[in-house]
Amino acid sequence: MADLWNVEKIPFVGTEDVKQGLGFRYYDADRVVAGKKMKDWLRFGVAYWHTFDQRLVDPFGDGTAQRPFDGKYSDPMDLALAKVDYSFEFYQKLGAEYFCFHDRDIAPEGDNLRESNKNLDRVVDRMEELQKETGIKLLWNTCNLFNNPRFFAGAATSPFADVYAYAGGQLKHSLEIAKRLGAENYVFWGGREGYENLWNTDYKREQDNIARFFQMAVDYAEEIGLDAQFLLEPKPKEPTTHQYDFDAATTIAFLKTYGLDDHFKLNLEGNHANLAGHTYQHEIRVARTAGMLGSLDANQGDKLLGWDLDEFPSDLYETTAVMWEVLAEGSIGPKGGLNFDAKPRRTSFSEEDLFLAHVVGMDAFAAGLLIAAKMHEDKFIENLVGDRYSSYDSGIGAKISAGETSLADLEEYALDIPNEDILASVKADKLEALKATINNYILSGLTEK
Amino acid sequence: MADLWNVEKIPFVGTEDVKQGLGFRYYDADRVVAGKKMKDWLRFGVAYWHTFDQRLVDPFGDGTAQRPFDGKYSDPMDLALAKVDYSFEFYQKLGAEYFCFHDRDIAPEGDNLRESNKNLDRVVDRMEELQKETGIKLLWNTCNLFNNPRFFAGAATSPFADVYAYAGGQLKHSLEIAKRLGAENYVFWGGREGYENLWNTDYKREQDNIARFFQMAVDYAEEIGLDAQFLLEPKPKEPTTHQYDFDAATTIAFLKTYGLDDHFKLNLEGNHANLAGHTYQHEIRVARTAGMLGSLDANQGDKLLGWDLDEFPSDLYETTAVMWEVLAEGSIGPKGGLNFDAKPRRTSFSEEDLFLAHVVGMDAFAAGLLIAAKMHEDKFIENLVGDRYSSYDSGIGAKISAGETSLADLEEYALDIPNEDILASVKADKLEALKATINNYILSGLTEK
Amino acid sequence: MADLWNVEKIPFVGTEDVKQGLGFRYYDADRVVAGKKMKDWLRFGVAYWHTFDQRLVDPFGDGTAQRPFDGKYSDPMDLALAKVDYSFEFYQKLGAEYFCFHDRDIAPEGDNLRESNKNLDRVVDRMEELQKETGIKLLWNTCNLFNNPRFFAGAATSPFADVYAYAGGQLKHSLEIAKRLGAENYVFWGGREGYENLWNTDYKREQDNIARFFQMAVDYAEEIGLDAQFLLEPKPKEPTTHQYDFDAATTIAFLKTYGLDDHFKLNLEGNHANLAGHTYQHEIRVARTAGMLGSLDANQGDKLLGWDLDEFPSDLYETTAVMWEVLAEGSIGPKGGLNFDAKPRRTSFSEEDLFLAHVVGMDAFAAGLLIAAKMHEDKFIENLVGDRYSSYDSGIGAKISAGETSLADLEEYALDIPNEDILASVKADKLEALKATINNYILSGLTEK
Amino acid sequence: MADLWNVEKIPFVGTEDVKQGLGFRYYDADRVVAGKKMKDWLRFGVAYWHTFDQRLVDPFGDGTAQRPFDGKYSDPMDLALAKVDYSFEFYQKLGAEYFCFHDRDIAPEGDNLRESNKNLDRVVDRMEELQKETGIKLLWNTCNLFNNPRFFAGAATSPFADVYAYAGGQLKHSLEIAKRLGAENYVFWGGREGYENLWNTDYKREQDNIARFFQMAVDYAEEIGLDAQFLLEPKPKEPTTHQYDFDAATTIAFLKTYGLDDHFKLNLEGNHANLAGHTYQHEIRVARTAGMLGSLDANQGDKLLGWDLDEFPSDLYETTAVMWEVLAEGSIGPKGGLNFDAKPRRTSFSEEDLFLAHVVGMDAFAAGLLIAAKMHEDKFIENLVGDRYSSYDSGIGAKISAGETSLADLEEYALDIPNEDILASVKADKLEALKATINNYILSGLTEK
Repeated sequence: MADLWNVEKIPFVGTEDVKQGLGFRYYDADRVVAGKKMKDWLRFGVAYWHTFDQRLVDPFGDGTAQRPFDGKYSDPMDLALAKVDYSFEFYQKLGAEYFCFHDRDIAPEGDNLRESNKNLDRVVDRMEELQKETGIKLLWNTCNLFNNPRFFAGAATSPFADVYAYAGGQLKHSLEIAKRLGAENYVFWGGREGYENLWNTDYKREQDNIARFFQMAVDYAEEIGLDAQFLLEPKPKEPTTHQYDFDAATTIAFLKTYGLDDHFKLNLEGNHANLAGHTYQHEIRVARTAGMLGSLDANQGDKLLGWDLDEFPSDLYETTAVMWEVLAEGSIGPKGGLNFDAKPRRTSFSEEDLFLAHVVGMDAFAAGLLIAAKMHEDKFIENLVGDRYSSYDSGIGAKISAGETSLADLEEYALDIPNEDILASVKADKLEALKATINNYILSGLTEK
Repeated sequence: MADLWNVEKIPFVGTEDVKQGLGFRYYDADRVVAGKKMKDWLRFGVAYWHTFDQRLVDPFGDGTAQRPFDGKYSDPMDLALAKVDYSFEFYQKLGAEYFCFHDRDIAPEGDNLRESNKNLDRVVDRMEELQKETGIKLLWNTCNLFNNPRFFAGAATSPFADVYAYAGGQLKHSLEIAKRLGAENYVFWGGREGYENLWNTDYKREQDNIARFFQMAVDYAEEIGLDAQFLLEPKPKEPTTHQYDFDAATTIAFLKTYGLDDHFKLNLEGNHANLAGHTYQHEIRVARTAGMLGSLDANQGDKLLGWDLDEFPSDLYETTAVMWEVLAEGSIGPKGGLNFDAKPRRTSFSEEDLFLAHVVGMDAFAAGLLIAAKMHEDKFIENLVGDRYSSYDSGIGAKISAGETSLADLEEYALDIPNEDILASVKADKLEALKATINNYILSGLTEK
Repeated sequence: MADLWNVEKIPFVGTEDVKQGLGFRYYDADRVVAGKKMKDWLRFGVAYWHTFDQRLVDPFGDGTAQRPFDGKYSDPMDLALAKVDYSFEFYQKLGAEYFCFHDRDIAPEGDNLRESNKNLDRVVDRMEELQKETGIKLLWNTCNLFNNPRFFAGAATSPFADVYAYAGGQLKHSLEIAKRLGAENYVFWGGREGYENLWNTDYKREQDNIARFFQMAVDYAEEIGLDAQFLLEPKPKEPTTHQYDFDAATTIAFLKTYGLDDHFKLNLEGNHANLAGHTYQHEIRVARTAGMLGSLDANQGDKLLGWDLDEFPSDLYETTAVMWEVLAEGSIGPKGGLNFDAKPRRTSFSEEDLFLAHVVGMDAFAAGLLIAAKMHEDKFIENLVGDRYSSYDSGIGAKISAGETSLADLEEYALDIPNEDILASVKADKLEALKATINNYILSGLTEK
Repeated sequence: MADLWNVEKIPFVGTEDVKQGLGFRYYDADRVVAGKKMKDWLRFGVAYWHTFDQRLVDPFGDGTAQRPFDGKYSDPMDLALAKVDYSFEFYQKLGAEYFCFHDRDIAPEGDNLRESNKNLDRVVDRMEELQKETGIKLLWNTCNLFNNPRFFAGAATSPFADVYAYAGGQLKHSLEIAKRLGAENYVFWGGREGYENLWNTDYKREQDNIARFFQMAVDYAEEIGLDAQFLLEPKPKEPTTHQYDFDAATTIAFLKTYGLDDHFKLNLEGNHANLAGHTYQHEIRVARTAGMLGSLDANQGDKLLGWDLDEFPSDLYETTAVMWEVLAEGSIGPKGGLNFDAKPRRTSFSEEDLFLAHVVGMDAFAAGLLIAAKMHEDKFIENLVGDRYSSYDSGIGAKISAGETSLADLEEYALDIPNEDILASVKADKLEALKATINNYILSGLTEK
């Protein structure tokens, strides 16, 4: 490591000092929890766009970020190439084994697609070298089909065929890069695939077009032997008024409608879940139920604010719930990880803050894992749920579960049961006690290994 | 008509006097608009629960409603039977040709399901007589599987098998009533089918169970020769934290997952759409695109308030958008109508208000129909949309539309087009002008027939 | 104690068993924390309306509550009198030293105000006896001026003078009861004081009228020597579209406009804060800054749901923040306490749940107190804030703070400072680290006394 | 006019053609409505920042705007000076008589405040010339104290004294410019005056500091003889988590707390109102009631989206309500106008769209004025409200209104009135009919002069 960043490799410092500075308190990569190493449960990824490109702007303010490469490179390609080195040192100092990027994050556009591809390839060469050198892996890459003005009305749902064609061409090269860098997944986030105004939108045509786009991607991946898992990333709104992949369920409906459900899984995010009116846990559960959990974007929103904050995650209730679902599933999807689609607040602008923010996020998930693992070990939820539904294990319940009843059977069974007996057969849900027990798991303190 | 209500039959008074009292200004049942009578486009239905049972309570206030049958009947069955007469006179005085009800709206429960069914049958006898006498039809009926404490944790998704069985028995009889009264549709609203807390919920098991429930309904309908269209009614939340039929897309995902999509369509509502973060028009468009538009609940919410208001509809932007979709579709679904799932405000408690509120809602939709029909006649939206997507009518666009392109074709097409040429090929969307033109359609005044 | 409730006095069981049943884990009444007994910091009050009257209804469901007095009394006055005994045993078994009630919670209305007052007096007699016997105190009482249909358009803001007069008469007797029972505070919650629709509302007249109403209350309290602290309770909406006491700041504006700010403080609630778009901590801070913190309603909402849930509090982030503010203030207002304006979920309907829910809420606040006290002891926030604003302690900052600068002085000071020097003078806020440190305080486990 | 813009002066084309292109349909500057010329009721202002500087970016997309001065000037000062000429031609072609700007909109910053002021002065020289030449007036100007990174944690509420001092110096010069250009108002929008996180915020100190800042502004205005009306502009959130001027009521509380209420009025905006949970009409009514209506920002939000959209206004319900309040008030505040704090959608990027969007906004308010004037002429609302509150005109109501009653008087009056008589004394609010009548005013078509 060349010490491009003015920060030492992040140590594990443990939980002694509550106000301890830069260092992991709960994340200890090789510690075994619930039968796997922490790092293998969590598979943290750094998001190139936020961590290396984000200037910490907001709609009313210029960038505040202070980065070690600022002002050192006048040529955009020189900067792009240098950033790769900065990024790999960052991963190593942080102790993250994965990274993620959009094509346009890593290299500037040229005057046409061919030129843009050339720029990309030069940067990808350097990435490939550093991946080999360091063992850092690509969790996923993706195409930026939303930032450039040409995509103002969508890419694969653009009303303009040339834009669609351009997007397809751009995607092709991005898939080739995925193949070359050994991407474990390939993500599609449809930031402009939706509508600003429904009145001027041919909803059906746009859905048909994007389905064809995805089919072409599937075909091309097969052609080149790319075995990355394809992922769609739901988000309900922002930047557009309404995005097609509103939430997990909507995305599943789309995939089933177009027969694409065998080829895609979902990349879910906490902040996006909230914008759609859901908890993060809900979205993960919906995906799990459908066999569609692919990967996770690790961030958090503020439920009192209506836009995409991409905060680094710190809410222990949320990280505990997410990790409980992951433990129940056995993994974050077949090849999934926790990508930090998150940026420090605009007021946390220093170089040290950038590391600190990742450490906070990693620790929040590590703590969530430890808490959830204890719950899991106790079979707390499993027993509670098993007990709650136990009336389906025998009698009429078992017949219902086996699909062996008709409405007539049910009527016959129920017709003469006194109302009061039915009411007496149910049990109160004790939801307050449930919440208190989760608090107890959190408050009982995290055990040392 | 026996003059049970102290209100005359509602006349058509036209638009002369802006502050005109009780009377239709825009709704004129037999006026032909876009090739059909107004009443055949709109197919207004009165909701029994709101119009005859609702006392205008809220969570902090007792009922304020003043109804002509108040205090006249001490026996619940006498009241239930009398209300049928009140209801049919109401339909006639209002000029509505349809009504809708839940089983528990029309008759009190007995001590067990058999007794409850008996009570129901007595009331249904009277309904059947009055339907024959008056020609008023049943738009749809449904089962109330949410109000009784036994359903506190769901009916078809209850963790308690006896409750599930009871619900199935209740449904059976409700389907028999649908058959007997010639219901054009049969609705399922899963007000308790969802979860209060995800931690104690076996999401997959509950989804499997409710899918079996719907399959039993499909089977029984076939068995008894009921040809009513089955409808699911999405709502995201309230009373529970999260309902399974969150919105149109979620409901479609469920139906496709369980292979039920050939047997069900959707009953959509404006207020529910808003609670899910959508416009009413969006939900209708989603359903239309999927071939799933079944029927509509006519009401409106207040986007600044987060609960189900069930206001009578008055927003002309919304009624215009809804009727435009209906005109584009050709009808409100194969057997659909506009059911007033709406109640007067708690402060509009008089008998006259109850009529007035329906008139306001009918006029708002009639005005929306007239405005949308003018837009439709001008092909305003059709031309605008046709023009916007015209690049898909020839060249590379036509090939894309025909599914004849691969990513390699698209790359070849796009690789050397200069960025500036791509940008020059698109057209600005002129969204402000679009909104102004809709205003002009509204402001140009409604033409007399 | 007569064992009216089938529950033993709640013991302190400590933190050993994470899934421990009915018992306090963190709340230990006489344990000294930050110089005071826990019970004196927290001053828990039980809300009569929720705990003894609430049937656990919701807008789509009948009551599910199972209470030990159900079905035992046919005469409403007998039930009312019996409930007083139930309530005092409940306070004692729970270990709460305070209670709160609305007039209409404790006794049924008669045919006119005089009769209603008589009913009230009989119940108050029994309360007075039991207060003397047990030492349980009245945290506050209040008038229910929202539930009866007569208040459909407000009480002190009703457009109908007779309703206003009636409300004034009702208030007079309620103040007399406050005097008699030694209420430490007297609360006004304006659940109907606002508007359903702004178009038909004379905003100014209604504000003037309610200000007069409050002035009459102040005058009458003085006349009868009632020294309870008067409190207004903000809530933005529900049941009406918009309530006048929208939030803390709005209520302060009203009090200052009408010169009532010396006579009133605020009773703040977490769920109401969220409905207004604020955190609970924000509302408390606003009140503290204005010298207006009076008392607190202990409950929580769900920020993804838009209505008043009145959940028992369990969120440790929220209870920690609230108790930190209380520690910084020295108390919950001069005579304030934590009143459980909360109800068990409709699915937690048993007698045991009712105790359990209070225990959960008390423990959540006790844990919050312990965590906040540790932060306080470390001066964690105080030092961080002191450091952040330290530039105001000397130089130009000190002059600004002393009010000794003019714009000309500031211009002279700043005019020639290079932009880069200004930027170099600021420090990053390290917000992610701040959140992580709060997590550490929570996760470090609660120390035994 | 030099024809810098490729658009003709906007003509009045009237309402004949519903799909008419660029031209006013309802806005006719000199038409007399309710005793004043349209232009004198409406006093439209163009917002420099949106109309001339806005590139139509969003958080996920680069600017799409196509402007006639793009690419013509390499030196920022040359561009700044040229834009002044473009701007005045724009005002003239549009037919707007006012404009508004922030200091940083019109000239680039220099290396220190002195340099920045010099840059400003050169541009202001040109503005002054063109104001004289054209008669176009300055509705208001303001200081941009939020965009530069130095203000990342506020300006007058910055924790850093040098930043505060800098802001004071910047303000001084901005007030001098207001004086020189004859600004009718001077606005303060506290986009960074609030907090990102409450834990690290000294709320009281920040409030004290900003109050001193405003006092210095008041003092300096007096010193230089600036008689512009000072205005605060409420906004609840975005960019920060919570802004101090949350809404009208909060801002009034602040002004009264610090004795600044005689020197400031409010500048209100529809989109900001919605973000705070209010209607635009509500915010205006609150300000009117307090005698604090100063001026209006004309734009609209989307109540289903949680961020600041700054759409050009088109909602006729909203413009009608706003103009009704203005008619009732007699003007938009003593010196107020309608400033278009609005931007075309990112997809409406052409030069023509920029004009079109302003035309749409002006027409929407002109239509609102015509509709509201008709309502006003009919005294529709005045009579309805007068009637609703008529019980306060005599008897006990008159005594209450005169402040001549005590609680004892009210009790005496009400004590023996039977409950049923009280209830019989009230009248239903007929809210549905009210909404329908407003629809009728809109639908009856706009009369030609």
